[in-house]
Amino acid sequence: MKNLLLATSLFLLIFSCKNNSKSNYDVDIDFDIATNTSKRANEFAIVIHGGAGTILKKNLSDEKENEYKAKLEEAIKVGYNILKQGGTSLDAVEKTINILEDSPLFNAGKGAVFTNAETIELDASIMDGKTLNAGASAGTKKVKNPINLARKIMDVSPHVMMAGEGAETYAKEQGLELVDQDYFKTENRLNTLNRVKANEISKTKTTAFYDTDIKDSKFGTVGCVALDKSGNLAAGTSTGGMTNKRFGRVGDVPIIGAGTYANNATCAVSGTGWGEFFIRATVAHDISALMEYKGLTLQEAAHEVIQKKVPNLGGNGGVIAVDKNGNMVMDFNTAGMYRATMNDKGELYIGIYKQ
Amino acid sequence: MKNLLLATSLFLLIFSCKNNSKSNYDVDIDFDIATNTSKRANEFAIVIHGGAGTILKKNLSDEKENEYKAKLEEAIKVGYNILKQGGTSLDAVEKTINILEDSPLFNAGKGAVFTNAETIELDASIMDGKTLNAGASAGTKKVKNPINLARKIMDVSPHVMMAGEGAETYAKEQGLELVDQDYFKTENRLNTLNRVKANEISKTKTTAFYDTDIKDSKFGTVGCVALDKSGNLAAGTSTGGMTNKRFGRVGDVPIIGAGTYANNATCAVSGTGWGEFFIRATVAHDISALMEYKGLTLQEAAHEVIQKKVPNLGGNGGVIAVDKNGNMVMDFNTAGMYRATMNDKGELYIGIYKQ
Repeated sequence: MKNLLLATSLFLLIFSCKNNSKSNYDVDIDFDIATNTSKRANEFAIVIHGGAGTILKKNLSDEKENEYKAKLEEAIKVGYNILKQGGTSLDAVEKTINILEDSPLFNAGKGAVFTNAETIELDASIMDGKTLNAGASAGTKKVKNPINLARKIMDVSPHVMMAGEGAETYAKEQGLELVDQDYFKTENRLNTLNRVKANEISKTKTTAFYDTDIKDSKFGTVGCVALDKSGNLAAGTSTGGMTNKRFGRVGDVPIIGAGTYANNATCAVSGTGWGEFFIRATVAHDISALMEYKGLTLQEAAHEVIQKKVPNLGGNGGVIAVDKNGNMVMDFNTAGMYRATMNDKGELYIGIYKQ
Repeated sequence: MKNLLLATSLFLLIFSCKNNSKSNYDVDIDFDIATNTSKRANEFAIVIHGGAGTILKKNLSDEKENEYKAKLEEAIKVGYNILKQGGTSLDAVEKTINILEDSPLFNAGKGAVFTNAETIELDASIMDGKTLNAGASAGTKKVKNPINLARKIMDVSPHVMMAGEGAETYAKEQGLELVDQDYFKTENRLNTLNRVKANEISKTKTTAFYDTDIKDSKFGTVGCVALDKSGNLAAGTSTGGMTNKRFGRVGDVPIIGAGTYANNATCAVSGTGWGEFFIRATVAHDISALMEYKGLTLQEAAHEVIQKKVPNLGGNGGVIAVDKNGNMVMDFNTAGMYRATMNDKGELYIGIYKQ
């Protein structure tokens, strides 16, 4: 009887402690990983996104869908090849994002959305999971590839974040390519701005620049996370922000811990969604903290933040993430997210809509 | 006998689970709080800082010391009275910071440090622990009280963060007081800029705007955290940033999760230190996450981040914080931090140097 009581108590003890710190799935898998760090799911891995939002099959022609898929494949293969050849996750992230920035399909670099003043103002950030070093730029108008500026800020300057004209002065000093605003502008995005503005007038909003449709419009942002062969994680994100934005609005993308975070102890995360809510929920760092302090798996942590915390605040969007063991996650609470993964065996997955 | 075994098992159960998630002090106190939420350490409480850094008794005249103490007392009593009369923690934070912004003693508002271009560029942020709503402004040059702009952005706009001229346009639309740059400028800060610049030339730094002395110079920032009678937490921070800053550098102050964070589930935090490291370590949100996910007390969490994580990265500074039970913490790894607390009994503590 004593033994039975003791056994019961011990069982309770173990069970209760586990329940304190984890939810009720993936416990075994996570335990294996925790006790055997050499047992990586992938030696290296890469995940990208091209924005989340109301992306519905009925609104996308087959031709357009194929264009998106082809560009996602082109971009991720650039990073994959860097990783395969033993390059760093930082290089993979930067070069992959360059492809997406240079494509007019996505809301970053060329093809970025318009501000209320019909200008293009770009934000970007990058983070190195090995050193926790980071770089971010906000509101630049001339830098062709904002992710390259974020990288320079991280690598060369003693600062983490630069904004506006000052950031552009720095980009020029560092020899980065500058372009006219016309380079970024596309007819498609101008039409979107005009639609949003027309809507604004018809609804006579008190806060003229705000449109509840934003909640349901596409959040085009691009991002990439990667694990390299040395076990180093990196994350990067680049965007034009929100159509019709005013007042020097800064979203989550250049906010380290919100739109971008990487830490070799846990994971690398890049977000895409309604930026204000991603800042308030400190999305990217929260996913990392849930893994590090609460023992959740990457999948559980991303689910907790994207399916519960962000929607509870009233926001939406998605994240891509990879953990230190090469487990990849793409989680979103919107109708779709342009996304792709490649593992160390070279297997490619491309997705647009919810499965 | 059965009862004894059961009691022992239960004791083991509680003790073991606790040990899993906490270090070895404050367990009893915290346990009391955890099991009896009505047993708050303070029904309401307020903590302020006026910056951390190399603040040494030998460098501060008695007269100057008394000036600092008098201003800290004046400021905290404004917030204390709001809280005592049943006002909100947000109002207490905003109004208290206004006093510090209006004083030339601190690096915020009037008396802010100079940029490399001999201008004043101010950052501020505020967060509401009840709703996780937040507001932040970066790089404004005309707004007399940046914390008021942060509050307007939080309360009125759909955005969290605004930067530069756009933020000023918004401040004007909202009827906030705008002033000339001359209002902010003090001879003392101009002398500091000139000293830093002279030092720069003599050392012929490759990165001209960077000075390692910054590591040892005073990080004047002001901040306030408060718990009100309704149990709502709030945090706010305001600063002129780093002397001699260039390139539109943005520090940790307007970054939600880095320099400022509040969450009714855990605590409210305001930081002061080398901003780049506070961003990389996501200081304010990390303290909250260590409490929420790892079960640390506020004191343990602040200690972990300020005495270990930030110094391990190479940074320094301090935080003030208050948790949902009214426990107050002031933790810093520098020689001093201008600081004050008031509890619900009206007891005032003012400190400058390390104890």
